[in-house]
Amino acid sequence: MNSPQNIVQYLYKNDAYSQWLGIEIIEVKIGYCKLKMKVRKEMLNGFKITHGGISYSLADTALAFASNTHGKKCISMETSISHIECVQNGDCLTAVSKELSKTEKTALYLITIFNQNKQEVAYFKGTVYRTSKDWEIHE
Amino acid sequence: MNSPQNIVQYLYKNDAYSQWLGIEIIEVKIGYCKLKMKVRKEMLNGFKITHGGISYSLADTALAFASNTHGKKCISMETSISHIECVQNGDCLTAVSKELSKTEKTALYLITIFNQNKQEVAYFKGTVYRTSKDWEIHE
Amino acid sequence: MNSPQNIVQYLYKNDAYSQWLGIEIIEVKIGYCKLKMKVRKEMLNGFKITHGGISYSLADTALAFASNTHGKKCISMETSISHIECVQNGDCLTAVSKELSKTEKTALYLITIFNQNKQEVAYFKGTVYRTSKDWEIHE
Amino acid sequence: MNSPQNIVQYLYKNDAYSQWLGIEIIEVKIGYCKLKMKVRKEMLNGFKITHGGISYSLADTALAFASNTHGKKCISMETSISHIECVQNGDCLTAVSKELSKTEKTALYLITIFNQNKQEVAYFKGTVYRTSKDWEIHE
Repeated sequence: MNSPQNIVQYLYKNDAYSQWLGIEIIEVKIGYCKLKMKVRKEMLNGFKITHGGISYSLADTALAFASNTHGKKCISMETSISHIECVQNGDCLTAVSKELSKTEKTALYLITIFNQNKQEVAYFKGTVYRTSKDWEIHE
Repeated sequence: MNSPQNIVQYLYKNDAYSQWLGIEIIEVKIGYCKLKMKVRKEMLNGFKITHGGISYSLADTALAFASNTHGKKCISMETSISHIECVQNGDCLTAVSKELSKTEKTALYLITIFNQNKQEVAYFKGTVYRTSKDWEIHE
Repeated sequence: MNSPQNIVQYLYKNDAYSQWLGIEIIEVKIGYCKLKMKVRKEMLNGFKITHGGISYSLADTALAFASNTHGKKCISMETSISHIECVQNGDCLTAVSKELSKTEKTALYLITIFNQNKQEVAYFKGTVYRTSKDWEIHE
Repeated sequence: MNSPQNIVQYLYKNDAYSQWLGIEIIEVKIGYCKLKMKVRKEMLNGFKITHGGISYSLADTALAFASNTHGKKCISMETSISHIECVQNGDCLTAVSKELSKTEKTALYLITIFNQNKQEVAYFKGTVYRTSKDWEIHE
């Protein structure tokens, strides 16, 4: 069945990098997902704070999950991220997606990342291309 | 000595995540760096292609390295990336930076990522904030 | 007096281009503004829809107004806009700002543009540099 | 005939706003254009420098012209601009486009804006959606 939950489960099970990040799926529904992960010391950069690529990667996974829930395969095209607050080792990050628009061929999402104190640490905006291929999950 | 090379070596030695990515430093000079890395299977996403966070992370490391070569500590503020071509398992990526502008407090870089066939796979634009703290490396 | 309202009035009175656009100030408070304008036929592009530069310009004015309300002179550094819906001749646009973050030296705003049907037509994200110069308005 | 030149001429002739801006077409070829304009006093903002919307608008016109030269109707989706140098009243701006990528459904352009001293004043990155409609110009 191609429910939003099944599509996201399928994507996650096959997503070695999101597993390395330790991403947990908190909630999934049509056009939406909420994800969580904990920062580990192998995710730090030369300033001993979390590498910008970690928040970006969490947001990019949220973009993939949220955009694919509609049942069409979607590919990320153009994304931007603003880093607002430093993220420290041990911080627990939550990514929440919001679908800003969706047309036949493209869709736009805003993904906000919070730390464990509900402080916003990054804003991510992502545009996906919606292919004509439908998800077909048999299991 | 605070040469561009020493600053980048220091940053790299302390950057656990760039080491996990397997980044190699090819060339460093004032306002510039060239980096390389090979994609491994733990960097793939649910579509079995390279997760967008990997190219972003390579570019973000290049941004940190290039912007810090001037001797002032710089922090990434706003970045965007356009994914042009899919990156496959085993691909070898090269990131090349170009300094587009530099003022007292901010600087802007364009970072292009190529695959082993010299095809452009991603364009990254990054703005950094240039703090008033100087690098002081004693070794 | 350097109230948010006075600063925005001063900026607006001297802003020939925002006046050409026909921008009206609906509401101003610390870190916030709401603006309105009506699209005229000299704002259309070769497809006979509103030129993307018009929505951008409205949002960029909102960015300038909102960021300067804190009493420090702010300059736009990096902005991006996603065009969601076509804007037609005669449409009435409203821009609403949201301050996403503010540090000593930089601040980030999300500006949403709606048409007269309360449909979102564009999302704009802008980063400003906060100079050390204070506003001093004597009148 | 649907030559790049004819398509751009058609777009320009119908583009009231680009005419208001005083844009001149310097060169057009497949996937490329070079445009010029002079800043007038009605384009200034409340700081008495050129409103950010003016450079954006010039770049956005260049994006429309360059992307439509291939003969398919293209629509701007996601654009970003970094303002590098202030632009003054009377400055003469030149926009030069570079096609970074082009697939069946989307294309990406980098547009650089120079002033009369060949200084770079802004960098613009734009993604367009390539519709399935062909240009058909009869004249």
